[in-house]
Amino acid sequence: MDPLANIRMVLVRPIYGGNLGSICRAMKNMGVTRLVLVNPNPEMDFGEAQKYALHANDILETRSQVTSVEEAVGDCAVVAATTGLKGLYRSHTKTPRELAPRLIESAQQHQVAVVFGPENHGLSNEEMQFATHLLTIPSTPAYSSLNLAQAVMLCCYELYLASEQYAPPQEFHPEAPVVMRERFFDLWRQMLLDIKFCDQVKIDHMMMGFRRIFGRGYLSEADVNILMGLARQAAWAAGKSAAKDPAADAKRADELAK
Amino acid sequence: MDPLANIRMVLVRPIYGGNLGSICRAMKNMGVTRLVLVNPNPEMDFGEAQKYALHANDILETRSQVTSVEEAVGDCAVVAATTGLKGLYRSHTKTPRELAPRLIESAQQHQVAVVFGPENHGLSNEEMQFATHLLTIPSTPAYSSLNLAQAVMLCCYELYLASEQYAPPQEFHPEAPVVMRERFFDLWRQMLLDIKFCDQVKIDHMMMGFRRIFGRGYLSEADVNILMGLARQAAWAAGKSAAKDPAADAKRADELAK
Repeated sequence: MDPLANIRMVLVRPIYGGNLGSICRAMKNMGVTRLVLVNPNPEMDFGEAQKYALHANDILETRSQVTSVEEAVGDCAVVAATTGLKGLYRSHTKTPRELAPRLIESAQQHQVAVVFGPENHGLSNEEMQFATHLLTIPSTPAYSSLNLAQAVMLCCYELYLASEQYAPPQEFHPEAPVVMRERFFDLWRQMLLDIKFCDQVKIDHMMMGFRRIFGRGYLSEADVNILMGLARQAAWAAGKSAAKDPAADAKRADELAK
Repeated sequence: MDPLANIRMVLVRPIYGGNLGSICRAMKNMGVTRLVLVNPNPEMDFGEAQKYALHANDILETRSQVTSVEEAVGDCAVVAATTGLKGLYRSHTKTPRELAPRLIESAQQHQVAVVFGPENHGLSNEEMQFATHLLTIPSTPAYSSLNLAQAVMLCCYELYLASEQYAPPQEFHPEAPVVMRERFFDLWRQMLLDIKFCDQVKIDHMMMGFRRIFGRGYLSEADVNILMGLARQAAWAAGKSAAKDPAADAKRADELAK
């Protein structure tokens, strides 16, 4: 059971079609699909909404529409209403990041709603009374009023992350072990001498520098293969290596780097 | 020194004025003020941008404009380039939440850039080459392409939170200590008997139920005052209390609840 399927976004008296479409797109980006409109602007431009929804037109088309907040959230166990920094009861609000795990937990078994007021001002006290929780999105005091679609996006984003469905794309880049790193440092040491970058007196000091540079971050086996290929090629170019051109190795390392 | 003042948003070849304006607003909401455009659409509708920027027109007006990514990020120590889930090098990307603390740390001393591609496709390989870090915004595989302004908002939001400047609005609601809670439970116990809600046989069991109900969440001193006022008034209404009408207490509790 996907908890996000039990979470609905409730827009109270929304005005602009562009925002409505952007909200559908933001919801679909974050895996939230249920949209309820409470008394939308009778002049709402649904053509514009379609334009902004792009590939989230399914969410726009499957929206519900009701005539009161009570009707929109009647079957919900948890109702989070959004309010501005300066809103009434502001001292009881939580941030989306604080509240998202609670909403996801409830949504495992219950219906959950997040309620947003119209663009021009927030929810009225009557519309807020059904809220079990109040929610304020962090913003600077210098300009705390967010665009409605941006506010919905941030809430959906926090819900999506709290649902722990996001698996960051990860290919496995095995980190080079010490034996491989030491083979690489040996090759570089010899190469630096071969190309006369430094002499026997300074080589230990120089190698400490290179160890520092290459020790600062993650160094994968593929990375080390590239760096060893470079050392072999430089030694070859300086006429110090075996007869065979090691460029073939370098090309292979190049492939590995992709 | 505010680290956000050292972080710039770089938009490469942006197309739409509406997005540009929304980006200015999102940036200002989150305390990020430096905007650089690289080769914006020559037909860019700056009137529309102004309309969408609303109270963030200062960011629009103080933008820089350059002709290459190299120029936009040349003085930066850290450059995070955004890339889609399907982008090249995707296996090396981090999320905004993972990367934000690193960017804020660098921005204490260095210039930092976050680079975004145009609306219709991402950054080219040439434009990405200056990146020290790659960044992918979490989204569902069902619809992973975010609106540009939404993408900028999520990055600025994570940077703002990582900068730890947001102080959630908090008035102090002291939690009721045990002695106060016990006084309240004693009053309720007597009131439940007085109004004949239950008898001496069942009262202990019933009080366990009320202890459970009121023990589930945070109960402030103000909350307990309301609940005690209710008990006094109910006992009075049932003719079991002292002569004086305790409604004055209830009104005081009502004041406290605000």
